Amino acid sequence: MQRNGVMECTACRSRLVAPSPRSVSRAYDKHHNKITSKFRALKFLLVVGDCMLVGLQPILVFMSKVDGKFQFSPISVNFLTEVAKVIFAIVMLVIQSRKQKAGEKPLLARSTLIQAARNNVLLAVPALLYAINNYLKFIMQLYFNPSTVKMLSNLKVLVIAVLLKFIMRRRFSVIQWEALALLLIGISINQLRTAPAGDTAFGLPITAIAYIYTLIFVTVPSLASVYNEYAMKSQDTSIYLQNLFLYGYGAIFNFLGILGTALFQGPENFNILQGHSRATMFLICNNAAQGILSSFFFKYADTILKKYSSTVATIFTGLASAAFLGHTLTINFLLGISVVFISMHQVSLPIS
Amino acid sequence: MQRNGVMECTACRSRLVAPSPRSVSRAYDKHHNKITSKFRALKFLLVVGDCMLVGLQPILVFMSKVDGKFQFSPISVNFLTEVAKVIFAIVMLVIQSRKQKAGEKPLLARSTLIQAARNNVLLAVPALLYAINNYLKFIMQLYFNPSTVKMLSNLKVLVIAVLLKFIMRRRFSVIQWEALALLLIGISINQLRTAPAGDTAFGLPITAIAYIYTLIFVTVPSLASVYNEYAMKSQDTSIYLQNLFLYGYGAIFNFLGILGTALFQGPENFNILQGHSRATMFLICNNAAQGILSSFFFKYADTILKKYSSTVATIFTGLASAAFLGHTLTINFLLGISVVFISMHQVSLPIS
Repeated sequence: MQRNGVMECTACRSRLVAPSPRSVSRAYDKHHNKITSKFRALKFLLVVGDCMLVGLQPILVFMSKVDGKFQFSPISVNFLTEVAKVIFAIVMLVIQSRKQKAGEKPLLARSTLIQAARNNVLLAVPALLYAINNYLKFIMQLYFNPSTVKMLSNLKVLVIAVLLKFIMRRRFSVIQWEALALLLIGISINQLRTAPAGDTAFGLPITAIAYIYTLIFVTVPSLASVYNEYAMKSQDTSIYLQNLFLYGYGAIFNFLGILGTALFQGPENFNILQGHSRATMFLICNNAAQGILSSFFFKYADTILKKYSSTVATIFTGLASAAFLGHTLTINFLLGISVVFISMHQVSLPIS
Repeated sequence: MQRNGVMECTACRSRLVAPSPRSVSRAYDKHHNKITSKFRALKFLLVVGDCMLVGLQPILVFMSKVDGKFQFSPISVNFLTEVAKVIFAIVMLVIQSRKQKAGEKPLLARSTLIQAARNNVLLAVPALLYAINNYLKFIMQLYFNPSTVKMLSNLKVLVIAVLLKFIMRRRFSVIQWEALALLLIGISINQLRTAPAGDTAFGLPITAIAYIYTLIFVTVPSLASVYNEYAMKSQDTSIYLQNLFLYGYGAIFNFLGILGTALFQGPENFNILQGHSRATMFLICNNAAQGILSSFFFKYADTILKKYSSTVATIFTGLASAAFLGHTLTINFLLGISVVFISMHQVSLPIS
């Protein structure tokens, strides 16, 4: 779709300024429709994959615990996850380069790599923001109890929408804004069930500094996701190369973080492999796979779909644990998922 | 609005078959717009009045208790309320008949009364259904705990919408159906807070008979309201006369109920004035005034607006008790009212 020289992608509704206003032919539209249906299939696969990985998560977390506790340093997990992502990205890149047809620009050629590295310097920004976010999570737990942190995290979906509006120039209808608010509310209702009884009000007294931390805690990862989406979409570079750079930067920033922690708090924090087992390696691989999948979300779908996907995964986990483990479905859960389903329908309505 | 010979009222969106298809002139439209804005003002007044009466209710209930308990038989309250409504209706009828201009058909003439009584026999149906409903409330409490009864009552809004669709031929868009579901969910979330801790699942084991009672419990009052709306709107009779008949029938049916109870359970249940005080009389007057107000809702607005009005009243009560009595606003309350507000906006969207 093209309006006033601004292109709007029918697949992801993002708007980018068109290089030059040209008339859109029927043939182009037809081609675009074909792409749209391909995109739809890809989006479906992304959501299914995401649900499976997210569903596997609690099982792996359970298996990673020894006597109900983690033996490894949580900081090391972030770094090892980034390293795993880099390895995944390299493997995928090599596989893709072997599948290339004659005449295509070789993915692993020195000139391609240098050109791609130059074009994708922007990916350092989300990588840095994600690394900062890993530290913010720890700080937040000093000010709020874990269930409140989870609740506050839900606000991200609205912040992401605001950022998408301003950075990606994406348009939302009033109904879609309401749908996003409903998603936030639906997830929150669902989480109320896990809050301890009588603790539905905020757990700790809220100070001014806590408000500021909350603002930062919500904005940084949202900005990271939206900027990531922007950086992935704005370049024509192959996603396999983009992944390599994104996770390369991520590994570097996380390593610097560990180095800093070791400098300030002593070298015992530097022992990144301590306390890991086969189960924790699976957990790290799962985290890494989720990270790779989000890259595909950002490149071919969008941040909002990623949020809905995580929510659907949570719902499936809840339903599965009710069906197979005999957990009771609480009223909160049923009310929450009803709101989420209504939200999903309303966010998908076309902008009139 | 007129489509395929079916008239749709722009004020309440009900559809009635038009007596004959005629072209709608501009002048008619203009007249209708004037009526619509008058209707809007009337609707606003109805909602404000309803909120005030509903807000007064808990204070009067508190004042009516002696040592934290009611001294009077709950069955007697229903009958006395109907009697109070009849008295209110007579007073309003006399006032209206004095305000009549020369040439108007006199409201209190014998012929008018007989004609109106004949035309409004239908009002006996909702009166009977309401009387049955008063007894159902007691039966429900044998099967469910009070908070579950309250939760199940919320289902009425959806049943009412289905009945409006079939009896009043009212059309709802998908968004409006979702809005009604959101209203139901929003109220339920709000009520979760009052449920005892850990008791978010259904309190008592649910048997097949309980399902049937629930179905009846939800359908009877919904049918009463919708049939009431239908009966009030389908006749051109003055609302003051209609009220007289509706509450007259109501008083008769409730009196028969008391008579039946006295026959089966002994004459001590017949002492309808026992245990009443000045405070309980105020409570009964408040109930009666709410009843009179609902007649105006049914005649000039609709059952759905009545439901939203009650919800707004509950929200105001919650906010007022937070502002003046220092009650804390729970997360449930805030999430619940957010859903209700989104629902209010979406239900008011025009059908495209």
